[in-house]
Amino acid sequence: MAVGEAKFPQMPAIANIRLGTAQAGINKAGRRDVVIIEVPEKARVAGVFTRNAFCAAPVHIAKRHLQYQASRYLLINTGNANAGTGTQGMQDAQACCAALAELARVAEHNVLPFSTGVIGERLPVDRLCKSLPEALANLDDSAAAWQLAGQAILTTDTRPKGASAMCDIAGQTVTINGIAKGSGMIKPNMATMLAFVATDANIESELLEALLRDSVDRSFNCITVDSDTSTNDACMLITTGEGASVASDASIATFREALDSVTRELAQAIIRDGEGATKFVTLDVQGAVSRDEALNVAFTVAHSPLVKTALYASDANWGRILAAVGRAPIEDFDVERVTIDLGDIRLVQAGGRAPGYTEEAGSAVMARDEIDIRINLDRGEAAATVWTSDLSHEYVSINADYRS
Amino acid sequence: MAVGEAKFPQMPAIANIRLGTAQAGINKAGRRDVVIIEVPEKARVAGVFTRNAFCAAPVHIAKRHLQYQASRYLLINTGNANAGTGTQGMQDAQACCAALAELARVAEHNVLPFSTGVIGERLPVDRLCKSLPEALANLDDSAAAWQLAGQAILTTDTRPKGASAMCDIAGQTVTINGIAKGSGMIKPNMATMLAFVATDANIESELLEALLRDSVDRSFNCITVDSDTSTNDACMLITTGEGASVASDASIATFREALDSVTRELAQAIIRDGEGATKFVTLDVQGAVSRDEALNVAFTVAHSPLVKTALYASDANWGRILAAVGRAPIEDFDVERVTIDLGDIRLVQAGGRAPGYTEEAGSAVMARDEIDIRINLDRGEAAATVWTSDLSHEYVSINADYRS
Repeated sequence: MAVGEAKFPQMPAIANIRLGTAQAGINKAGRRDVVIIEVPEKARVAGVFTRNAFCAAPVHIAKRHLQYQASRYLLINTGNANAGTGTQGMQDAQACCAALAELARVAEHNVLPFSTGVIGERLPVDRLCKSLPEALANLDDSAAAWQLAGQAILTTDTRPKGASAMCDIAGQTVTINGIAKGSGMIKPNMATMLAFVATDANIESELLEALLRDSVDRSFNCITVDSDTSTNDACMLITTGEGASVASDASIATFREALDSVTRELAQAIIRDGEGATKFVTLDVQGAVSRDEALNVAFTVAHSPLVKTALYASDANWGRILAAVGRAPIEDFDVERVTIDLGDIRLVQAGGRAPGYTEEAGSAVMARDEIDIRINLDRGEAAATVWTSDLSHEYVSINADYRS
Repeated sequence: MAVGEAKFPQMPAIANIRLGTAQAGINKAGRRDVVIIEVPEKARVAGVFTRNAFCAAPVHIAKRHLQYQASRYLLINTGNANAGTGTQGMQDAQACCAALAELARVAEHNVLPFSTGVIGERLPVDRLCKSLPEALANLDDSAAAWQLAGQAILTTDTRPKGASAMCDIAGQTVTINGIAKGSGMIKPNMATMLAFVATDANIESELLEALLRDSVDRSFNCITVDSDTSTNDACMLITTGEGASVASDASIATFREALDSVTRELAQAIIRDGEGATKFVTLDVQGAVSRDEALNVAFTVAHSPLVKTALYASDANWGRILAAVGRAPIEDFDVERVTIDLGDIRLVQAGGRAPGYTEEAGSAVMARDEIDIRINLDRGEAAATVWTSDLSHEYVSINADYRS
């Protein structure tokens, strides 16, 4: 299941960013499961990673290699997360980096590894390494290469996720392309389940990192399928440095807007393809004392199994939304001031059902695939938006059957 | 669905505690849905209530009436929570108290109201009040009356929940009887979804409240079905004051142990009857810096939809347990020290799969109805135990169909 139409944009080439794929036989679905992204020598790469304490071996290695600021290859495999694999996992991730480095005649620290899939099983290093020549041989900057890479990074996803934006900076066109994967174990914390964004803009490293962090905070860090933060989340932003310079306030603002549109579209695509999703839900919390407070309320509602099953049933059970808002961790919470709207329909005010609310009106909104819930706490100026999916029979089936 | 055998104990009478039931037609299941508990004039009543900010009208009224320390009647209805009902809900709860007070010739503040059921619909005051004479007429202290009351407080529960204990205090037998209800929207915070415990011990009010609070903290506050804290949770402890005096350290210790056994059994019964439950899971976290830290880890695992669906599937997917532990909010968390055991089987150590672990051994434990998961953080002396259920197709069905 998934919400809305599947669409993968026609990605424009970004000079000197090339993508190659191969089938190593790690992902049991029997499809391409290895991706190499080649970046030029002068490229700068920024990354944000999961805050799960049990983070995967490739996350440790990628962070370490990033410190050299000399990345040339990103090596991604699906079908195996190389997480919960202890010292052996670290050796395995390094062995794959070394193998690619040798083939490509670069240093081991020029390779950043990424894995996604089953946790706790040993990475099949041999199979992965044997597939590298094939992936290197088909490195390409075409739209088809972007789409193949978008497909080859999927696990339980039902569709590839890509987004592209262009902006004009000082008369030069800047392009931003991004691909992402993720469908379950989605409640990113400071990053998401593998997203790769590339641009030709020329941005110095510190700014690049700040732009990525801000953008992720308002996109991937604002989505949740099932509240489970993965061990392998990573979002990388690559810039070739060959295009327009982004340094002035005006150019930063322009670039930021384009980058945010790409990360937001990718994050939303993950929710639309959330495991078992039949609804795409936007939770908009306003009137909070702080953004953290707004996020707390939004995530409490987004994680409530009772709200999620009501959404699945298209049941305008606003009592469950109210109960979830009421248990959010907020000090001195005056619920009399809270209003809750479903689409254009006022559900709750003054501690109870809004006057004039009818079940018919609520049900008409709930019957839609895409649903907006607006919660106004009326106690401050801060706001946050979170996107989530519903909890369906299919979600249980997928996760009671997956793995093994 | 439910885990283990249904059993309701033969409750011994507690002198001057009488229970009456009636069918008011509020609960759509077409069964008794009103309970009156009568307590003697000298009785003392302590209560702990939900911390949901949107707490129900009867919770507000019961707290207010409790301050008079003169409770004579507890009035409970199912089928309607009288929550999210604003000012009207307060008036409705008061009207029911007033009606019972008039019939029983007591003051309105001598009546404590409790409601459970659908949120956000107006309480059918007329129907409830019309049923009161019937419930008053069959007030009784027999085992049958306790069991009827245990049944009449249920909503989506599939079985009544009762527990009883006796202890010897200074040569006198003290009895503790308790009934509880709850199956969904179960993640109590300082109380649970309606539990009523009564004893003949003679305990002064302040101590009574402290004993209740401590006992609830280690029983009802340590269970979760679905992470959703209800708007109506309440746990009441009634003492007639007619039996042995509980005041010395030794008698307090004896009484506490008996009380804890009753609240723990009731709390566990709620989990065994959790919505759609096919597993009863004990999460035992040790080696934490503080009890709060241990509870945080236990609840993070207990709320993980991925862990819960793996339990449903009897899949020893320890990677999901590890990922959930890893995302628990812990400072400076060294995961290398963590061990995770499933029953007698070591799953995880040194950041990965324990040497010697086999899928066969893990699967044999997971196939059981009752499963123990032990997590040792190896960084302190504190511990906590939490009980939870799994996430099944049936859970989704119940909550996609319930209400309306």
